[in-house]
Amino acid sequence: MADSAQLKLMADKLRIHSLRMTTAAGSGHPTTCLSATEIVSVLFFSELDERDEFILSKGHAAPLLWAAFAEAGLISRDELLNLRRIDSVLEGHPTSRMPLIRIATGSLGQGLSAGVGMALAKKLVRDPGRVFVLLGDGEAAEGSVWEAADSAAHFRLDNLAAVIDANRLGQSGPTRHGHDLAAYERKFQAFGWETAVVDGHDIRELQGALARAGGTLKPLAVIARTVKGKGVSFLEDREGWHGKTLSGKELQAALAEIGPAEVTLNSRYTSTAPAFAFHDYPVNEYRGDEMVSTRTAYGKALLNLGRSNEKVVAVDGDVKNSTMAEEFFAAFPERSFEAYIAEQSMAGMAMGLSAMGFIPYAATFAAFLTRAHDFIRMAQYSGSNIKFVGSHAGVSIGADGPSQMGLEDLALFLAMPETLVLYPSDAVATEKLVRETARHAGISYLRTTRDKTAILYGNSEEFPAGGLKAVRESGSDRALVVGAGITVHEALKAHEALKGRGIPVRVVDLYSLQPLPEAELARHAAECGGRVVVAEDHYGGAIAGLVSRVVGKVTGLCVKEIPRSGKSSELLALMGIDHNAIARAVEKLTTQDK
Amino acid sequence: MADSAQLKLMADKLRIHSLRMTTAAGSGHPTTCLSATEIVSVLFFSELDERDEFILSKGHAAPLLWAAFAEAGLISRDELLNLRRIDSVLEGHPTSRMPLIRIATGSLGQGLSAGVGMALAKKLVRDPGRVFVLLGDGEAAEGSVWEAADSAAHFRLDNLAAVIDANRLGQSGPTRHGHDLAAYERKFQAFGWETAVVDGHDIRELQGALARAGGTLKPLAVIARTVKGKGVSFLEDREGWHGKTLSGKELQAALAEIGPAEVTLNSRYTSTAPAFAFHDYPVNEYRGDEMVSTRTAYGKALLNLGRSNEKVVAVDGDVKNSTMAEEFFAAFPERSFEAYIAEQSMAGMAMGLSAMGFIPYAATFAAFLTRAHDFIRMAQYSGSNIKFVGSHAGVSIGADGPSQMGLEDLALFLAMPETLVLYPSDAVATEKLVRETARHAGISYLRTTRDKTAILYGNSEEFPAGGLKAVRESGSDRALVVGAGITVHEALKAHEALKGRGIPVRVVDLYSLQPLPEAELARHAAECGGRVVVAEDHYGGAIAGLVSRVVGKVTGLCVKEIPRSGKSSELLALMGIDHNAIARAVEKLTTQDK
Repeated sequence: MADSAQLKLMADKLRIHSLRMTTAAGSGHPTTCLSATEIVSVLFFSELDERDEFILSKGHAAPLLWAAFAEAGLISRDELLNLRRIDSVLEGHPTSRMPLIRIATGSLGQGLSAGVGMALAKKLVRDPGRVFVLLGDGEAAEGSVWEAADSAAHFRLDNLAAVIDANRLGQSGPTRHGHDLAAYERKFQAFGWETAVVDGHDIRELQGALARAGGTLKPLAVIARTVKGKGVSFLEDREGWHGKTLSGKELQAALAEIGPAEVTLNSRYTSTAPAFAFHDYPVNEYRGDEMVSTRTAYGKALLNLGRSNEKVVAVDGDVKNSTMAEEFFAAFPERSFEAYIAEQSMAGMAMGLSAMGFIPYAATFAAFLTRAHDFIRMAQYSGSNIKFVGSHAGVSIGADGPSQMGLEDLALFLAMPETLVLYPSDAVATEKLVRETARHAGISYLRTTRDKTAILYGNSEEFPAGGLKAVRESGSDRALVVGAGITVHEALKAHEALKGRGIPVRVVDLYSLQPLPEAELARHAAECGGRVVVAEDHYGGAIAGLVSRVVGKVTGLCVKEIPRSGKSSELLALMGIDHNAIARAVEKLTTQDK
Repeated sequence: MADSAQLKLMADKLRIHSLRMTTAAGSGHPTTCLSATEIVSVLFFSELDERDEFILSKGHAAPLLWAAFAEAGLISRDELLNLRRIDSVLEGHPTSRMPLIRIATGSLGQGLSAGVGMALAKKLVRDPGRVFVLLGDGEAAEGSVWEAADSAAHFRLDNLAAVIDANRLGQSGPTRHGHDLAAYERKFQAFGWETAVVDGHDIRELQGALARAGGTLKPLAVIARTVKGKGVSFLEDREGWHGKTLSGKELQAALAEIGPAEVTLNSRYTSTAPAFAFHDYPVNEYRGDEMVSTRTAYGKALLNLGRSNEKVVAVDGDVKNSTMAEEFFAAFPERSFEAYIAEQSMAGMAMGLSAMGFIPYAATFAAFLTRAHDFIRMAQYSGSNIKFVGSHAGVSIGADGPSQMGLEDLALFLAMPETLVLYPSDAVATEKLVRETARHAGISYLRTTRDKTAILYGNSEEFPAGGLKAVRESGSDRALVVGAGITVHEALKAHEALKGRGIPVRVVDLYSLQPLPEAELARHAAECGGRVVVAEDHYGGAIAGLVSRVVGKVTGLCVKEIPRSGKSSELLALMGIDHNAIARAVEKLTTQDK
């Protein structure tokens, strides 16, 4: 076990690395690293062992983390000077491109939520390790930190410790609370945490406080008074140095002040990404004459999946009786986590659970996933294996009005390049597509509908990701109607009406929006003379944009103005995406053509 | 002044309205209304006067609000039974379609942030009125509530009062704290608020506590112990009734229990939307040989705008030295509001400031606007006049890595149908487009770039919303390259290279993405033989989708995989959106064509 003098030397060594790396890179946040070097030295070379987890929530201190990894023998010291280079995994902020990283950070205020998820996972598998999260003081302004604090106390996570590096200075000026550490203490205590206030540059104080982690009845917040730029006289506690690197000359002056810091210490810390496993299982079946909402089918599919795979867990934002995850919650209470009305916390917990090898299904109203957009975006960079589900999609929800309508969720998820985006039109498709999400190692999004709809498919039908279904097709089709979810049902009604008027129309159910079945779409469009109508219950034509990039110009029917309360059928008509609007659009296309 | 017996009768009258309305509509949240009827009765018929503001943060209690409006004489009682009908402005959750509403709610946890903005606005114009925000207990789980609580204490908003309707039951089960009112009290006190705990069905206790608003040194939280479904025995404190309406028979039983509640009271409450005013002003000019980043030009434009219009205010998330709003903050400290690292609070404050007639410019990194996505979405339904600005767009920011790159911001804002979406390529365009945002009565988004770029335009050039600029054009152009922002500069380099290879190419700067200059785009595409390349520094082809819907198939160059740290030029090349990639795409199109 290292003594405090050695740990202090190691802190200085991490200081030296951080300064050298950022000067070599020509960008980065050295002063942010310097306030936390003693904390990281004590954690990596005294407190953490192989069972513990560490998350650097203040992601802009990445150089410090890379330096600690190098000194811990996890990466080569030579790699450090490649910081921020295009061929290095040592990026400006931690991402999972670096194999030891399972929680990407750099958007502040997210690490603690992920820590909650990791700590829950450890409880679930009876792992005695602890989870340490290092936060900056500035990021404590993010409400997501307090959502996480709430959840940690709620779940009695005595295996979770937050360390607040209170260095007083934010990016553009002093933080709200500056060095008023009692303000942080009051808040954490009010949220049900144990607290300790320490001098963040005093090794013994840090050792004493951090060693309490895992031994308290509540989660532990260690609030460390630190100095930004600590150890270098011309950087210490100075404004205007955030995100600035030292020139070569300044670096030499800084290194001269710090001294040689010759020390080598062992670390027991490690970080191992869990393996991903999909187990196949029999699916639920539906009768052809049933009326079932896809959200109900989602609930049944999740329950079914959960029976076959104990790694499947569910997180909720107090809407499990709307998303229909409630049956899973009832059947598997130990694998079900209620985040209450705190969608960021929900997504963050899912990140942490995923990082520990679980397969979290995180569901809320599609509209409220926007609340977690930044977390969802960052989950990409964590390599997370989260299955997001958004219910109550579109204006078809009816009378609750626009605040409850998911009308931007497809835009959100389609702007995530490695994410599976699926949108079932009936219960059979939902069951099969939930299996596709489980099979996919990565993030997926499934969009469900509030109202009951008819069963369109037989139980033996398969729905591979990247496919589509031609649900009405003939050799003489004069136009192609592309629907997804609720608009497939409208398209089928339009098909019937148009058939009565002597206009045969092909109807495609575009259940896989990403990956997009480009070749199949192009073939169907060509076979229908290039006359294509796309109908979607979403703002601005997200699906029309996808389709037209493949097949050329289309008639795009979508939600083009702000909707209102009303009946589902009234709203579909008012927004111009119902069967009448589809039939009119087809007639216009086929008439122009004569 | 009404006595407490009359106020109690009014509470029952509001109860009756709420039950009748929701049964008539066949949907809604009657039990959520019933816990808050005494609070609303005291507020509307005793405490609020014409100088005060009221926000119903628990938007699902909308029927109660409409009932209070009717009893206050602000709308007709006959309208109430039109609740949730497609031709009524009395929607399921409050929106600005109803003229008395300036803060739409229904996504929980947003009202208090808007209240902070309104209270700041009142301080700014020395208006002695107060702002009351009625929250549910469930929504206190949203971190945004604590961001707002932090801001309110920071700005010493003694004119702001939050009333927590702690009815113990959420949607899918009990809330985290149930009736542990001390938990809310501890939290608000820790966040620097004055608190009062009352029986939320006791008129005198409510009067006593609410009358303290405006007379405390700190913002005031009144935590009211209430019963969900209060007043109807079979609803009181029962799970399973959230969002459910009474049948005709149940309604009769409920009304019989409540009794006739015959009372008429006067209210001094009103709600007046402020007028919008744009004042023209002289713009900043740039020399043709300067290198200026568009974020720097934004900072200068904002300062310039602020000089001419005292309604212009700025809000920031501790990045004003990156978005470059810092000059405005220095010049107009009283009109500048620091939200610290809390983007939801930033957006919510902007909502409140806008509702009071100010013109807020809310800027942060484009990536971090995703943190406020739900607030931005809801701002549409508030009829807000907020000008969002996202800096550090795209992979062109370089070494900081993907967490800091705005790669989904266009998708976010293009999914907002009435929002202006503008993306300047140089400083002159930025100056002019900031003027367009100020001129626009509604939400706008301006996307800026981190690095310095060349000046492309003369100072007399105009940039109307809905336009584009053909920056290179000849009668023999063989392809059209559409760029926006940073890719315009890449397109210009490609133009030069292709000219050297004998391929004349037209280059369009598509600075207005919404409204889209459809006719002009179509004309340019046609004049270039329909060969179109779109290059954008954004995920998934948001701009390519827009363009192809107008001109047919295009070659879309965009960010198709997760980027990494590196130099700006390296990343533009790696992602296939630099001048070489553009030139290659043009050559491929023009070669295929021969």
